[in-house]
Amino acid sequence: MPKLIYASTKNRDLFYALKIEVSDPVFFLESGGRKYVFLDAREFGIFSEQNENRAMEAVPLEPLLTEISKADGNMEIANKTALHLLKTYCERSEAVSVPEDFPLSMADFLRAKGISLTVQNPFYPERAVKNSDEISLMKEAAKRTMKIFEKIEEILKEAAIEGEYIKYNGEILTSELLKKETAMEMARQELIDSEGIIISSGQHSAIPHHPGTGLIKAGSPIVCDIFPKSKISGYFSDISRTYVKGVPSKEISAMFNAVLRAQEAGIKKVRAGVPAKEIHNACAASLKESGFETSEKGGFMHSAGHGVGLEVHERPTVGPNSKAILETGNIITIEPGLYYPEFGGVRIEDMFLVTETGAICLTEYTRKLVIN
Amino acid sequence: MPKLIYASTKNRDLFYALKIEVSDPVFFLESGGRKYVFLDAREFGIFSEQNENRAMEAVPLEPLLTEISKADGNMEIANKTALHLLKTYCERSEAVSVPEDFPLSMADFLRAKGISLTVQNPFYPERAVKNSDEISLMKEAAKRTMKIFEKIEEILKEAAIEGEYIKYNGEILTSELLKKETAMEMARQELIDSEGIIISSGQHSAIPHHPGTGLIKAGSPIVCDIFPKSKISGYFSDISRTYVKGVPSKEISAMFNAVLRAQEAGIKKVRAGVPAKEIHNACAASLKESGFETSEKGGFMHSAGHGVGLEVHERPTVGPNSKAILETGNIITIEPGLYYPEFGGVRIEDMFLVTETGAICLTEYTRKLVIN
Repeated sequence: MPKLIYASTKNRDLFYALKIEVSDPVFFLESGGRKYVFLDAREFGIFSEQNENRAMEAVPLEPLLTEISKADGNMEIANKTALHLLKTYCERSEAVSVPEDFPLSMADFLRAKGISLTVQNPFYPERAVKNSDEISLMKEAAKRTMKIFEKIEEILKEAAIEGEYIKYNGEILTSELLKKETAMEMARQELIDSEGIIISSGQHSAIPHHPGTGLIKAGSPIVCDIFPKSKISGYFSDISRTYVKGVPSKEISAMFNAVLRAQEAGIKKVRAGVPAKEIHNACAASLKESGFETSEKGGFMHSAGHGVGLEVHERPTVGPNSKAILETGNIITIEPGLYYPEFGGVRIEDMFLVTETGAICLTEYTRKLVIN
Repeated sequence: MPKLIYASTKNRDLFYALKIEVSDPVFFLESGGRKYVFLDAREFGIFSEQNENRAMEAVPLEPLLTEISKADGNMEIANKTALHLLKTYCERSEAVSVPEDFPLSMADFLRAKGISLTVQNPFYPERAVKNSDEISLMKEAAKRTMKIFEKIEEILKEAAIEGEYIKYNGEILTSELLKKETAMEMARQELIDSEGIIISSGQHSAIPHHPGTGLIKAGSPIVCDIFPKSKISGYFSDISRTYVKGVPSKEISAMFNAVLRAQEAGIKKVRAGVPAKEIHNACAASLKESGFETSEKGGFMHSAGHGVGLEVHERPTVGPNSKAILETGNIITIEPGLYYPEFGGVRIEDMFLVTETGAICLTEYTRKLVIN
């Protein structure tokens, strides 16, 4: 079935197909074993210069657009262009598959003209299985992300406790200050803060998705979840550590040790052929065994992991309801966590490559709670 | 007509409605004069804490989801949830408007269940007219973006010419080096490199969208087009300057002066009630008058500007085919440029607030070509 995308490379399936970022929407068509990208004059030259894929043909749109007549409403031109391309490059009456986020008005227009469209989701299921090039790129991104944690630890080490506060460079330590330093280190490492930064402490750390704001107190858990996109490759990495500056409560120390053991239990399950939900279940069982129940009051409140690649969350899913079977070449996170409003939160997250026989950690970086 | 969005705040219409970033898709529904956001447990707490809009009700999804039954395929749950929400919160047989990027399989599912959906594009036309709060936020973002140009000029000033090369801190100056410094300064200014950075020189500068790579030679034009997103407000700013370190060719100097005059000619046209295309036409006419023709060989090859706001390119369009009429509160760029492969490119871009009587520049920052 021919495949059609009309999007910028914010659509990561398109980036997967092109390997080149494009900031404005382009038409991408796979038909009859050929790949075509249709680009306007602004993009055609740059794209052709960068394109190394001989199986993909860049086609300038301009000769076509003058036929179609210009108008202000981009979608009107785009719709007519889509119809023209499908009629030119595909067999009559062939159904065309499109991604989930294909523009609805374009779909309505094409269907009204007799084109049959089917949503295909995932559009490129093979994205979940990384080849050796992708694995190298992701190792590189992971290595750079570990530098961020070195920077955070350096700041926490340099900082001094004054009463219940922490002072760094004469300022009282806050989530905002640590996030700014993190963003600067990301830039230095050619990583992009594409999806936000989580550095949360105190009660906020007990809410898994809380981005973190305000004071970071001595003795309070600091959940750092860093998931930048590599400017060089477009691939994400995703690592979490939980730190305490000062003396952790005995609850946080116990939670930290339990989360470490749970991650270990999850890692042990990893191997091609294993249902992904077994990793989640192993983490959950280990936490329970360590005495940490999950209820309305708190506990282990999210999936044990997820695939990572051109998006920070992609296939396979690694939660209790996952239907995925692990395959060699999957890159997944394992990130158990415990969250109790009265104590705070703890999360440890690393990235693993799934192999025939087990898991290779891509983020070998110390897992220590206390930084003094 | 009720309005339905199912998206994360990568959909900027959703951010416009919520004023809070959400990283995973949520349902947003406007119906019967009320606004609802339906969020799962991970997001509900954070959202409720941040939400200051009393006309918007956050509704937890969980009680509903247990009814709908869990499954791995997110879309299956999401589709059933959408149907349930529409049946619960909207009048029977009412048509529902959805944004252009509404998921196609959700649209197909809802329509098969008898729901009538209409794409509305623009979804929030009022986004093109900024209110006083938005103007303040955009001024703030613009001010921080001007700091980036101070940094670039500082580097160019400090750098030394050695033969045809430029040296900075012992390194030969490249687009990559300047972009890294730019990214670090963005982080310092709490700006996000969300859409890329253009710092191109030499032949690359003659291709308007070229991101720039490689050596920056003395005497060569350096087009710097910086369009970050504010981490604080979510609004973009967009400024371009063209620099030469060393001695510019007489062609580049003449192009620079012509582009400055063209921008001035465009600015003079700005006033509420004026067709936006007149700004483009004024820039084009001025460049022609200065002796710079546009042909296949080069010249003025893009629109004179665009609206800016929660997206770097948004309404109104400011090109030759624009049907927009300027309104008080529009914020637009005016960015004439000249591009000739044999000489290179020049672009100057500033942001303007449209008023009853003219234009207020939001990016008052020196426009000088030569930095030595």
